[in-house]
Parts: sequence; structure tokens; C-alpha cells
Amino acid sequence: MKAIVNVFLKNGVLDSQGKAVQHALSGHGFETVKDVRVGKQIIIEMNENDADAAKEKVAHMCEELLANTVIEDYEIEIQA
Amino acid sequence: MKAIVNVFLKNGVLDSQGKAVQHALSGHGFETVKDVRVGKQIIIEMNENDADAAKEKVAHMCEELLANTVIEDYEIEIQA
Repeated sequence: MKAIVNVFLKNGVLDSQGKAVQHALSGHGFETVKDVRVGKQIIIEMNENDADAAKEKVAHMCEELLANTVIEDYEIEIQA
Repeated sequence: MKAIVNVFLKNGVLDSQGKAVQHALSGHGFETVKDVRVGKQIIIEMNENDADAAKEKVAHMCEELLANTVIEDYEIEIQA
């Protein structure tokens, strides 16, 4: 079973990496870019058969380790 | 229009960040984890009306700036 976790800064938290990429893109002539956000995508292969159990475990992983829940939000997608 | 870009190390390139996360997860008792890959997700808001034109522009952004195409692959998803 595969879990795809996307971890992003919460809205309202300055995304300096996103701003830097946005600035660089406009410097390369990509004028139509309005906003850029940069986050992490973590793909986890797991020995699990039950999607709900897997999602619950991955949520614990996020709370404990993968995301800084003070400033970051996370989304979990499970693929069988 | 919104573009979602996922940038990952090519298969065969050592993902030391993924290995570190995998090691930490097993140290936290998550024994069912078999493999972990860590990549970037970049969300780009653009002033574009045509999905094909937007995808082409984002591919140029990836080739020029967002991905190191020697060691990284990228995927682009366009959302209207």
C-alpha cells in the first residue's frame, strides 16, 4: 500500500522559499506567475492491507515526525 | 489557473532524505514502512486561460529552474 503525504506551510505563514522561486521565475521572464508555494511530498510504501488503518498510521507519522503542525498542514492520500 | 509540480529524485539516485525519514519512522515504532521517498511539491498560480499553454510554460520552468533534470524527474498537473 502506498501513502502520499503533502506537507505545506499553513496559510498566513510566510513561504520564503515560495517567494524566492516566484522571484526567480519572473527573473527568467515567466511574467504570468501570480503566486508560488513550495512544500514537501513524501511517498511511503507500507506493508498494510487496510486503507483506513494505513491512513491512521500515516496521520500519526505526520503528527509525530513528518510535519511541524505548529506551522504546517498535511494531506494524506492512500493508494492501494 | 493552478499548476501542481512534483519533483522527485530519479530512480537509482540515492534518496538520503528518504532513507533518513524511513530510519526515523522505524525508530518511532512504525515497523510496516518498507520505503520512503521525499520530494518537492510546488504549486504555481498563473494568469493563464489555456491549459496546454500553461503546461508548456510550466515545463519550461521545470527545465530551467524548478528541477535539476540530471538527477530529478518532474510531473505537472494543471487545474483550471
